[in-house]
Amino acid sequence: MTNRVTATMLVIGDEILSGRTHDTNSHHVAQCLTAYGIDLKEVRFVSDEHAVIVKAVIELASTSDYLFTTGGIGPTHDDITAEAIAEAVGRPLTVHPEAKAILQQYYDEKGLSLNEARLRMARTPEGADLIPNAVTGAPGFVYRNIYVMAGVPRIMQSMLNEVLPKLRSADLISSETLQCRFGEGDISEGLSQIQETNSDVSIGSYPGKDTEGSFVNLVVRSANSERNKHVIQLIADFLKRLDER
Amino acid sequence: MTNRVTATMLVIGDEILSGRTHDTNSHHVAQCLTAYGIDLKEVRFVSDEHAVIVKAVIELASTSDYLFTTGGIGPTHDDITAEAIAEAVGRPLTVHPEAKAILQQYYDEKGLSLNEARLRMARTPEGADLIPNAVTGAPGFVYRNIYVMAGVPRIMQSMLNEVLPKLRSADLISSETLQCRFGEGDISEGLSQIQETNSDVSIGSYPGKDTEGSFVNLVVRSANSERNKHVIQLIADFLKRLDER
Repeated sequence: MTNRVTATMLVIGDEILSGRTHDTNSHHVAQCLTAYGIDLKEVRFVSDEHAVIVKAVIELASTSDYLFTTGGIGPTHDDITAEAIAEAVGRPLTVHPEAKAILQQYYDEKGLSLNEARLRMARTPEGADLIPNAVTGAPGFVYRNIYVMAGVPRIMQSMLNEVLPKLRSADLISSETLQCRFGEGDISEGLSQIQETNSDVSIGSYPGKDTEGSFVNLVVRSANSERNKHVIQLIADFLKRLDER
Repeated sequence: MTNRVTATMLVIGDEILSGRTHDTNSHHVAQCLTAYGIDLKEVRFVSDEHAVIVKAVIELASTSDYLFTTGGIGPTHDDITAEAIAEAVGRPLTVHPEAKAILQQYYDEKGLSLNEARLRMARTPEGADLIPNAVTGAPGFVYRNIYVMAGVPRIMQSMLNEVLPKLRSADLISSETLQCRFGEGDISEGLSQIQETNSDVSIGSYPGKDTEGSFVNLVVRSANSERNKHVIQLIADFLKRLDER
C-alpha cells in the first residue's frame, strides 16, 4: 500500500449547494479514478466564494496526489475558479496565448466575436498547461497537481478522458503493456471499439520515441489480471490484422 | 443577511468515493434546506476512516449552524459514524435506552433477535436525542447541532422530514401561517396533495396545545410571498370543505 495514489475533488458552484443542479460529475470522477487505481479520498462541494475556493484548493491539493476541480470556468462574472486557483498556487492570472488562439478559432468559425466575457475563459495561472475541450473549445487547465475542468458533464467527461491516461496510478491495479509502431491515429478507432466492448478495463495509449523512431505503448489496466491478458490479446490480434492489410 | 442560517453536510462512506454508489442524499438535502431558507454552505464526502470523520465533524459543526451527516449508522463493522461523532463532541458512546427499546420492539415484531450487531445501531453519544426512522426502526440522533442520519435514501428522507420542521430558518424566506383545530391525521392526506401540486413551496405542519386544546399550525414557506398566499388559501379552502363534511 506504499504506492497508494490519492485524489481529491472540489465541486464549485452555488447551483449545486442550492439544489438547483444535481452534481453527477463527482460520481463519474469516482468511477473513473477507481478504474484507474487512484483512490478518491474526499469530495467537497463549495459555493462561488473566492476565499472559500482558495482555502479548499490549498487544503485538498496539499493532502492528495491529484486535485480535480469542476465548475466556475465559464464566461460569466460568477465564474471565479481561475482567479482562485491562481491565488491558491501563488501565480499571477494571465491570458494563456494558446487558450486565446483556441477560443479565437472556435468563435471565428461560429461567426461570433471573442468578446471580453469569452476571453475570461482563456485565463489561467501563469505557466499552466491546457486540457483540451473537444466539445466547446474553451479549455481547462492543469497547474502542478491541480486539474481544473468544466462543470457541464459532457465537457467535464471529455476533459477527464484527456487527463486520465497521463496520471500515475497505483500498482495495486495490474496492467499489460504492448508496444507497436503504428501512429496513434491509425489505431485509435480500433482501440475505441475494443474499449467500448470491454468497459471493465481501461485501455491507455502512450506515444513515445526511441532510436528506431516513434512508438505507442498500449496499456490495459484493471484489478483483474486475467481480463487484462484477454484484452491485450484482442489488441494484439487487431494490430496483426492492421499489419496484414 | 444578518439572520442567515447555515448548514453543512457530511456524506460518509467508501462506497460513494469508489463510485459503487451514487450519492443522491446531498441533492435532496440541498433542495429541502433551500426550501426552508437554510443556506447549505458545503458538502463533503469522506471515507469510513475514524480520524477523517472526527476531523470533518469538528470542522463542519463549528463553522455552520447545522451539520447533517448521512451514512455509517448501520449494524456492520464499517459503520463507525456514532463512535466518530462521540469522539468529535467529547462524550462517551453509550447504548441509548430508548433506541434499544425501539430496536427490541422492531425485531421482536419481525421474529428476529436483537443481536450484538443490531444493538450497535442503538449507540449514541451520551445525551443525544433520537431521530425517528419510520422505515426500518433504527433511529438517527441529534447531538447539539449535529444531525446524524442513515445513508439509505428513503430512510434519510424520512429522518429529514422529522428534523426539518424543528430547524430555525432565515427570515429571508417569507411564510404564511394558518391555525386549525383538526388533528394532523385528518388533514395530512389533503395537505400532501396540495404539497405535491405546489412543489415550489414548502408546507409544514406543527401541532401544539393551548387552553382550548390541541391545534395545528400550518406554515407555507418559500421565497415567493405571492405563491405562499395562494397556497395558504388552497389550504384554507381544503379545511373549510373538511369542516362542512
